[in-house]
Amino acid sequence: MNLAAISHYADQRNCFCLHGGLFRIRIQVAKGDMEKVFLHYQDKYIPVNRVDTRGCTSMKLVASDVYHDYYEADVTIDMLCLRYFFELLGTDGSCHYYGDYRFFDQAPSDVEAMFDMPQILREEECFNTPQWAIGKTVYQIFPTRFATTEEVDPKLWYKAPISATDDLRGNLKGITARLPYLKDLGVDILYLTPIFRSNSSHKYDTIDYYEIDPSLGTADDLHELIDTAHSMDMYVMLDAVFNHTSPDFFAFRNIKQNGKSSPYINWYYMEDFPIFYGTKDKKPNFKSFAYYGGMPKLNMANPATADYFVQVGLHYVREFHIDGWRLDVADEVGHAFWKKFRYCLKAENPNLLIVGENWHYAPDFLTGDEWDSLMNYPFYKALTGLICYNRLTATGFVNELSFLKGQYQSQVLPLLWNMIDSHDVERFLHTAGHDKKKQKLAAALMLLLPGMPMIYYGDEVGLDGGFDPDNRRGMIWDEDKADWDMFAWYKRLLSIRRQYASLSRGECEICADDDLGVITIQLNDKTLAVLNVTSQTLSFEDLTEQSVMGEKLLRFNDSFNLLQDGDFSCKIAGLEAVILQLK
Amino acid sequence: MNLAAISHYADQRNCFCLHGGLFRIRIQVAKGDMEKVFLHYQDKYIPVNRVDTRGCTSMKLVASDVYHDYYEADVTIDMLCLRYFFELLGTDGSCHYYGDYRFFDQAPSDVEAMFDMPQILREEECFNTPQWAIGKTVYQIFPTRFATTEEVDPKLWYKAPISATDDLRGNLKGITARLPYLKDLGVDILYLTPIFRSNSSHKYDTIDYYEIDPSLGTADDLHELIDTAHSMDMYVMLDAVFNHTSPDFFAFRNIKQNGKSSPYINWYYMEDFPIFYGTKDKKPNFKSFAYYGGMPKLNMANPATADYFVQVGLHYVREFHIDGWRLDVADEVGHAFWKKFRYCLKAENPNLLIVGENWHYAPDFLTGDEWDSLMNYPFYKALTGLICYNRLTATGFVNELSFLKGQYQSQVLPLLWNMIDSHDVERFLHTAGHDKKKQKLAAALMLLLPGMPMIYYGDEVGLDGGFDPDNRRGMIWDEDKADWDMFAWYKRLLSIRRQYASLSRGECEICADDDLGVITIQLNDKTLAVLNVTSQTLSFEDLTEQSVMGEKLLRFNDSFNLLQDGDFSCKIAGLEAVILQLK
Repeated sequence: MNLAAISHYADQRNCFCLHGGLFRIRIQVAKGDMEKVFLHYQDKYIPVNRVDTRGCTSMKLVASDVYHDYYEADVTIDMLCLRYFFELLGTDGSCHYYGDYRFFDQAPSDVEAMFDMPQILREEECFNTPQWAIGKTVYQIFPTRFATTEEVDPKLWYKAPISATDDLRGNLKGITARLPYLKDLGVDILYLTPIFRSNSSHKYDTIDYYEIDPSLGTADDLHELIDTAHSMDMYVMLDAVFNHTSPDFFAFRNIKQNGKSSPYINWYYMEDFPIFYGTKDKKPNFKSFAYYGGMPKLNMANPATADYFVQVGLHYVREFHIDGWRLDVADEVGHAFWKKFRYCLKAENPNLLIVGENWHYAPDFLTGDEWDSLMNYPFYKALTGLICYNRLTATGFVNELSFLKGQYQSQVLPLLWNMIDSHDVERFLHTAGHDKKKQKLAAALMLLLPGMPMIYYGDEVGLDGGFDPDNRRGMIWDEDKADWDMFAWYKRLLSIRRQYASLSRGECEICADDDLGVITIQLNDKTLAVLNVTSQTLSFEDLTEQSVMGEKLLRFNDSFNLLQDGDFSCKIAGLEAVILQLK
Repeated sequence: MNLAAISHYADQRNCFCLHGGLFRIRIQVAKGDMEKVFLHYQDKYIPVNRVDTRGCTSMKLVASDVYHDYYEADVTIDMLCLRYFFELLGTDGSCHYYGDYRFFDQAPSDVEAMFDMPQILREEECFNTPQWAIGKTVYQIFPTRFATTEEVDPKLWYKAPISATDDLRGNLKGITARLPYLKDLGVDILYLTPIFRSNSSHKYDTIDYYEIDPSLGTADDLHELIDTAHSMDMYVMLDAVFNHTSPDFFAFRNIKQNGKSSPYINWYYMEDFPIFYGTKDKKPNFKSFAYYGGMPKLNMANPATADYFVQVGLHYVREFHIDGWRLDVADEVGHAFWKKFRYCLKAENPNLLIVGENWHYAPDFLTGDEWDSLMNYPFYKALTGLICYNRLTATGFVNELSFLKGQYQSQVLPLLWNMIDSHDVERFLHTAGHDKKKQKLAAALMLLLPGMPMIYYGDEVGLDGGFDPDNRRGMIWDEDKADWDMFAWYKRLLSIRRQYASLSRGECEICADDDLGVITIQLNDKTLAVLNVTSQTLSFEDLTEQSVMGEKLLRFNDSFNLLQDGDFSCKIAGLEAVILQLK
C-alpha cells in the first residue's frame, strides 16, 4: 500500500458540512490501491454521556485522477465532536489504520489517536451556495459588441474593437432587445463584462463605478435590462473590477493632483513621485495590473478602500437587484477583502452568486467564506488539451476533471463555470483551426458534463476570432452570416441538459476509453451520452467489447433510441456525440 | 518516482511570506525519492515588462517524517505574481516537472502550466508572530494550588483539590511572592489557568469574566502580579475560556429566569425548556462542554456574544497589559470568532501572544489570522509514546516532530508549546511509573528541542499526580519535600537552552538512531546534545560507527568538553543526556 500517497486533513478541505447534521468526509489514496475503505467514528465525549456512539461505514470511490482515488462517506451525526479514523484494506492484502495523521497496525482505541471534527464549528462553516444557480447556464456578453439599438455600419460592427472611445457601439437597450433570442437559445444567466464609465471598449479600467458608461446607456437602461430579464426567468451578473482602476478614477486623480499629501495615498501602492506610467521596457513606479500604468492596482489592505468597494458591490445588489458578481483578477485581490465582501453582500442577499476569476485550481478561495465558484479555466485547459493540442487523451481529460471533483468541496462542483473560451482567450473555433466539428464536440462536453456552462456570446452562431481584441468582434445578427446549424446544436444540447438533474448536481458517472477515444457520461439509469473524441468512426460493437462502459452499452445495444437527428447505424462518426436511451 | 505522494498547494499551506519580499515555497515528496529538487520561477507578466525574470534555485531537504521528505526554497522577489514549477530528479534516475497540479515530462513554458502566487496577496497574509516570544519558556500555574500568602494547613495544601469553594487556597499575591523563585529557575512567561469568578477550583466555569475570583485576590493583586513580573522581564498570560461559561454567568441566568423570551436566548444553544442539566445517562437539553450541564456552550455565531468576548479579551490587554491569551477548548470555537478576536486584539497590541488549546495538528487555525501557536499535544503524545508507552522508537519520535516541521508554516515552529504534561493529563512522573530518570530525559527533550517549552508547575521539584484532579496538588514549597536534584536539572537545561539561538529559531538538526536508541541535536557547529533513550549504557565508540550522526560525533570524539556534571568516560548511561562541545 502506498502510504505516502494517503492524504486527509480534518478541516474544511476533507471534512465538511453539507447541511444540518450531514457531513462528508473524504480521503485521498493512491490509484487502485484500495480494496475497501471504512470510516470508523464515535463521539469525542463518550465517557460523559455513557452511550456507545461507535459506528462504521463503508466509503465510496467517487473520483479517480491520474495518481489518486478519492473515497467519501456521508455521515449524519448529532455530537459535540466527531472522532474518526480510517480502515484501509489494500489490494495487496495489507490493512492499515489512519488516525490523527499517523498509521497504525491495529484499530486505535485511544481517542487521541483519531481525527477530530467539532460539529458546531463545521456547521457554522457550512459552504452555502445559491441553490437557484444549480443547473443554470451562463451567457457571457461583451456589451460594446453584443447588440445595439442604434444604426451602425455593418462593416464597423463586425470588426474587432480597439481601445478607443470612437469604437463603442453596443448598448444595454440592445441587450434587452435580444433577450428573446437568449431565451430561445436556452441560457439562464447573463454575465456582462464591465459596464461602468471607462474610456476603453473593454471597460476593465473603471473611471466611475457608480455611473453606467454613457456609450452603453443609463441607469434606467440597466434597470430595464435586469427587470426584463427577471420577468423572463433570467438572471443578470455584473463584473466587479476591484483589483485596479483607471488612472482617472477619483482617488488616483487626487493623488495625481496632491502627490504624497493626497488623502487617498494609501488607496494604491505608490512607490515614488512624480508618477511614471511605465514604458514597454520599464515598470510604472506604482503597482498596477500586469505592469500596465493604465490600470493602477488598488490597496485593499487599506480599510477605507475595502469599505468603498464593498459599498460599490452593495449598491448594485440593493438598487439594481443584480443576481451576482463576477470578480475580475480575483486571485490578485486579498482573501481578507473577499471574506468581507461575501459577509456584507450575502447579508444583503443570501442568494447572490459570487464567482471569481482564477485560472487555476484555487481551493483557498472556495471553502465557504469567499467565492461561490470560479471561472473553471482548468476545464478549458483540459478541453483544449484534448481536442486542439493533443496534450491529453480521453482518460487524461477525465482525470483532470476528476482531480477537481476529488479536491474541491462537493458544493462547488455544480457551480464551476465550465467554458470552451472567454473574452480572455482565443475563440475556441480559432484554436480548433476553424474545425466546426471540434467546436461542436467541445460544446457537447461543456454542456453534457457537470458544472455551470458559460457560453461566450457568438460561439453559438460560429463567431470566430483570435486573441484579444480579435475575440471581441461584433455579435452576428445578420441571418446570412450566422451558423444556424451550430445554433441548433447548442440549443439542442441546452435542452438535453435541462432534462438531467444528475448533470446539475454534478453526480453523473463519467468514463473514458483511450483505445477507442471515447468518453461516456451516464445521465441517468436509462440514458448515456457517448462522445467520440477521435476523427475515426466508432462502431458500437467495438465499444461493447472493449470500453470500460462496455457493460452499460451492452445493455443499451439492442434497444436504444437516438435522441439526435441524422444518420445513425450503430456507429458514431469522428468528433460526434450521441445520446442513447433505453427503450 | 512516487508521483502520488507529491503534494504542493500554491496557497498559505506551502507558499508563504516570511517577511517583505522573502517567500518560502515547500513541496512534499515520498521519503528518499529525490536526488535533487529545483524550483523554477518567473514573473507572471513577462510580456509587459520585457525583462527575462526566469530563475532557478535548488531546494533544500528540511524535514523527513515516516513517509515524506519536505523540500523548501526561499526566494526574494519583487513581482506582481510569481509563476513557478518544480523539477524533480528522482533517485531512480527519472525526471518529472510539476506545475499547475499536473506532471510534465518536459519543463513547461506555458505560464498556465505553472503554479501561481500573487506577491501582494501573500505579503498581506504574512504570518506575523510576536518576535519577543521566540526563545522564551512558559510556566503553567494552577492558581488555587500554586502559592499563597495565607496560612494553610500543610496537610490540606498538599492534597489534590476537589471542585468546591472550601477548597481554594492559592492566591495571586502568593504567585507574586514566588516570582523570584521562577526567575531563578529561568522561565519567562507565566501562564495562569482561569482566575475569574467561579465556584470551582479549576475555574473553567466562569461566572464573571470581569471579576477576579475573591479567593485569588483582587484586580489590584493582578495588577501587582503583572507589573512585578514585567519589572523582572517576565510575562503573564491568562486563560480565555470562551467555549462555555458557568450556568451562573449573567446571560445563562437570564435564560433560566426568562426562558425562550430571554434576550440572551441566542447566546447559547438551547434545545428545549424547562432546562435540564443532564445526568450521567442523559445529555442536557442545551449544548455544553463534554455534555456537562455545568458548562453550557456559548454560541459565537451570534454577533452579540462574539462582541462581548472580544471585549473581555480587550479588557485585560488594555487595563492589565497582559502579554497573551491561552484559548481554552479553542478547536471547538469557530474560526470566524478567532479571526475577529485576533484582528481586534492585535490592533490593540500587535505583540500579544495568542495560543490555542488543540490536541492535534491543526493547520486551519495557524495560517496567520487566528492563533500564533498552540499547546503542542502531538509533542506530548510522541514523547510519552517514546519514553513511557514504548509506542515509538527514537526515529519514530523524531518523525512525528518532523511531520509538524514539514507541515506547519515555519513561523509557528519556534512558538509551539512543547510540554511533558499539563493540568489536563497525568503528571509525566506518574505516567513514567515514577521513574525520575525518565522525567529528566523527557525534560531534556522538551528543553533541548525547538519550540516554546511549557513547564507545568511543580514538575521541576518532582511533584507527582495522576489524572485530574490529582495532577493539581499543592505546589511543593517545603524544602525537605522538593526534589532539588530535579530542580537543578531543569535550571541547567533552561540555562543551556538560552545559549543556543538555533533552538529558539527552530533550526537545529535532529537525528535519531534506533539501533543505539539515541537522539542527537546539533545546537550549533560546535555543540551537540546526545540523548540515550534506552536503559542501556551507550558507548561513544558505537556511535561513531553506527549512528547517523556518527560523522559528527567522530569530529567531537577526541576533543569534547562535557558541559554536564558527573562521571563521564565516553559513555552515556541509560536515559541520560550529555552535551558535547568541540574544544
